[in-house]
Amino acid sequence: MSSSLGSIFRIHTFGESHGPAVGVVIDGCPPRLPITSEEIQVDLDRRRPGQSSLVTQRDEKDVVEILSGWKAGLTLGTPMTLLVHNQDHISGAYDHLKDVYRPSHADFTTDQKYGIRAHEGGGRSSARETIGRVAAGAVARKLLSLSAGIEVLAWVHQIHQISGSYDIDKVTLDDVESSPTRCPDPNAATQMTKAIEKARKDGDSLGGIVQCRVSNVPAGLGDPVFSKLEAELAKGMMSLPASKGFDIGSGFASIEMTGSEHNDAFVLDESREM
Amino acid sequence: MSSSLGSIFRIHTFGESHGPAVGVVIDGCPPRLPITSEEIQVDLDRRRPGQSSLVTQRDEKDVVEILSGWKAGLTLGTPMTLLVHNQDHISGAYDHLKDVYRPSHADFTTDQKYGIRAHEGGGRSSARETIGRVAAGAVARKLLSLSAGIEVLAWVHQIHQISGSYDIDKVTLDDVESSPTRCPDPNAATQMTKAIEKARKDGDSLGGIVQCRVSNVPAGLGDPVFSKLEAELAKGMMSLPASKGFDIGSGFASIEMTGSEHNDAFVLDESREM
Amino acid sequence: MSSSLGSIFRIHTFGESHGPAVGVVIDGCPPRLPITSEEIQVDLDRRRPGQSSLVTQRDEKDVVEILSGWKAGLTLGTPMTLLVHNQDHISGAYDHLKDVYRPSHADFTTDQKYGIRAHEGGGRSSARETIGRVAAGAVARKLLSLSAGIEVLAWVHQIHQISGSYDIDKVTLDDVESSPTRCPDPNAATQMTKAIEKARKDGDSLGGIVQCRVSNVPAGLGDPVFSKLEAELAKGMMSLPASKGFDIGSGFASIEMTGSEHNDAFVLDESREM
Amino acid sequence: MSSSLGSIFRIHTFGESHGPAVGVVIDGCPPRLPITSEEIQVDLDRRRPGQSSLVTQRDEKDVVEILSGWKAGLTLGTPMTLLVHNQDHISGAYDHLKDVYRPSHADFTTDQKYGIRAHEGGGRSSARETIGRVAAGAVARKLLSLSAGIEVLAWVHQIHQISGSYDIDKVTLDDVESSPTRCPDPNAATQMTKAIEKARKDGDSLGGIVQCRVSNVPAGLGDPVFSKLEAELAKGMMSLPASKGFDIGSGFASIEMTGSEHNDAFVLDESREM
Repeated sequence: MSSSLGSIFRIHTFGESHGPAVGVVIDGCPPRLPITSEEIQVDLDRRRPGQSSLVTQRDEKDVVEILSGWKAGLTLGTPMTLLVHNQDHISGAYDHLKDVYRPSHADFTTDQKYGIRAHEGGGRSSARETIGRVAAGAVARKLLSLSAGIEVLAWVHQIHQISGSYDIDKVTLDDVESSPTRCPDPNAATQMTKAIEKARKDGDSLGGIVQCRVSNVPAGLGDPVFSKLEAELAKGMMSLPASKGFDIGSGFASIEMTGSEHNDAFVLDESREM
Repeated sequence: MSSSLGSIFRIHTFGESHGPAVGVVIDGCPPRLPITSEEIQVDLDRRRPGQSSLVTQRDEKDVVEILSGWKAGLTLGTPMTLLVHNQDHISGAYDHLKDVYRPSHADFTTDQKYGIRAHEGGGRSSARETIGRVAAGAVARKLLSLSAGIEVLAWVHQIHQISGSYDIDKVTLDDVESSPTRCPDPNAATQMTKAIEKARKDGDSLGGIVQCRVSNVPAGLGDPVFSKLEAELAKGMMSLPASKGFDIGSGFASIEMTGSEHNDAFVLDESREM
Repeated sequence: MSSSLGSIFRIHTFGESHGPAVGVVIDGCPPRLPITSEEIQVDLDRRRPGQSSLVTQRDEKDVVEILSGWKAGLTLGTPMTLLVHNQDHISGAYDHLKDVYRPSHADFTTDQKYGIRAHEGGGRSSARETIGRVAAGAVARKLLSLSAGIEVLAWVHQIHQISGSYDIDKVTLDDVESSPTRCPDPNAATQMTKAIEKARKDGDSLGGIVQCRVSNVPAGLGDPVFSKLEAELAKGMMSLPASKGFDIGSGFASIEMTGSEHNDAFVLDESREM
Repeated sequence: MSSSLGSIFRIHTFGESHGPAVGVVIDGCPPRLPITSEEIQVDLDRRRPGQSSLVTQRDEKDVVEILSGWKAGLTLGTPMTLLVHNQDHISGAYDHLKDVYRPSHADFTTDQKYGIRAHEGGGRSSARETIGRVAAGAVARKLLSLSAGIEVLAWVHQIHQISGSYDIDKVTLDDVESSPTRCPDPNAATQMTKAIEKARKDGDSLGGIVQCRVSNVPAGLGDPVFSKLEAELAKGMMSLPASKGFDIGSGFASIEMTGSEHNDAFVLDESREM
């Protein structure tokens, strides 16, 4: 069950970077959710490397097809299959990697565990695997928004030693999209771009922090004990390639607070129904 | 399935803090694992609040019984039930909480989601729920150690603004147990104790970081994509009450490294068989 | 996960026939269901061998305790643990079976698969394992009845070559309980009793058919494709020890019908709301 | 999870009869299993209505594509996606069913449960859903055969009132394929063909019994209690559209046996290793 995530809205991703296609089957999406392949395509376009505003020419790749679970703009309540065909790759492009394992890649582990040498772009461990996640995420986000008003927005908060400064509550999608690094602080974004370009020139790379804001979350999401909301979010995030840490709320910063600084007191808002 | 964790070695915890008992059913423990209730009891004793060396008097509570899946020192391969009866609590001890929700506790969420007002020590959300985890963990640790030589050791690294300094590779269980705070750095441990006692006197509390070292891990543990080792660990850790963050390897510290600093190059050790 | 059944209302049974206890953890029972241990006890008493009206003396064994998930007559929405302590068995009662495998029992398979020789009354494969199922079933039946008006009643339809004759729609619990064989046809019941007693005298045993009627089932129970209602029922029934077949509706009898005889035409009942 | 079956070798089927495609994702197939799309195609061709020897002209439809989990004749250990594009259907062919529910079909239930009116050939409940099962089954059978020597063969035993007569242990695939009804008894097969043709002429249909023989099954398959081999087989079979009953071993016929007739005594075969 390694390629499945979730319980009620459950996704199964599939596909290798150099096979014919990658994608996802969503099982458990309710019927009659209005969604189009165009809406899913928007997120797939955002996912593609080199699709930020820095890049002038936009090539139309990673085109999603809906193969099941959908008809005339509405979901059917049956498994929804979202497929993206891989483009032909340049034959021999990875030949120089045939005899070496790349550090911080899954080649070595895959070879040890499965006896499969996937030197061509990572195979199943390629970042292309996230295409299925992004496509399913577009459907999930539409569902959360229409059914519960929940809104999800993520952005780059830090790259190497440069972090952004902004009011988390006020960040908009436009702010995020206005810079190729997707940091909503324009000054930090400019410095990040320079740092990334310098590292690339040096044959190096830089890590960072992605921050995500989820709004209008109702009380009681998640299940007690092992499926707490933070536990399920942590699992999902830490299953992304190369993710090394996760925190929520005040997170690691809370360690240097006292309990009285950290806890939110309950406030009775008589204007809200419960 | 909220009270279940794991797939092959799968645990189901149960019990409320003020009900008759708490415990765990382990499904999937292999047969013929040698283990005794005394070995499990050691970890349950370590779990109990106030069981550190600071405390002079040791009362024998939280006694584990093995009700199934075990006979004469060996597991049977059938579900293993580990039960701890709760002690009688002082009637009325929580009466002053009847009409208020405690901040950073689950009372409010439980009431919203289930219509159950569990003001008596947290009910299912009490830290007593971890008794089932600790008992199952004792069995899991024995299994990992005997079947694969894997060793697990955890300790307190930081409390509020005080962090320990030591060589991670050399910390021993004795180092951890030598201080009531379970920080293997004796100087830091002393300061931590003082800080905790001061906060308690002020009616406050302090958070911290627990660090865990797992040794002799074979290549290929975990499953690709959603059940990566770090994803499953993150889920387990973030399901602990009051945990707010998780990182692994160089974790959040890796953000300020470049890729070339962060990556471990593969080294061919001709003396090791693969 | 072999000892778990169900998805939303999920049960985990545990216990060996000659260990300290048997029982079940129910995860997913909604909060605030009114149920008492006395109600569960009624079904456990019906389950016990020798508890029919033929038997004059009733010994009070298999007493259920509710260890979690319940308080003051109501479920809490947390895992519900139902425990039955095993009675002391006569030491040495199974010694003559130490060196032989019993036909149609699981001794041989258990020894082959787990390397565990469970000659004492079957261990985990004993019919005592069904105590957990029956206890959970009592809770499930109450839940189905109160939340959806669904009623479940089962009885013995056939023993060896003797089958009962009655109107399925009119069978009552009293009809079923009026005979020690639990066949609602009194004449057939008398013959069944005689046949069973004769077989027992001959050192033999007889099989039979249990029939079950479920009333007030709403349209749409079960999930399409692999979790169809009949598929899940079949799995549950065929997991009972010694069950060899399952059918539903007209079942195997439908083979000798034509499609036009077998199909129920839809009838529009204007008095019913949909 | 309604479209998923199995635990280690786990399949997820998808697709509606009148959508773009149907298929399956297999998660958990081990790496390096030799299999080709041609081998899978053989079973898909057998599945198609009208593909028996009675039919002279063979049209090449239901062509399977392997989209992931496979390279150059070997599985990769990653999710294996098998896809069959649906053919364009004749527009309006099902228009006469727009306003009526078909008896013994899922139209009514689907409409009640999902608010989806799938009058065009059954949608998800069409027999075309079994394409995913058959494709996955071809892979599973190859795996069982190569890894454990297990062989699976099924045939038609009875149609309406005509049943075949043959030695179960000696039936071959050639015997099964030699008749359009796939009954290995040639005389019964001829009568079955006539009965089916007569019913069709009368606008009616006939049911039957499929028998399946699995050879070389090792001791200990299946898991104790809820995932017994017979329980899992029953679930799978009863999830097939229009299946109404399942039995195993001597099945329902065992009811009229005594225990001593029914049980197989254990026989010690000294020539076999255990």
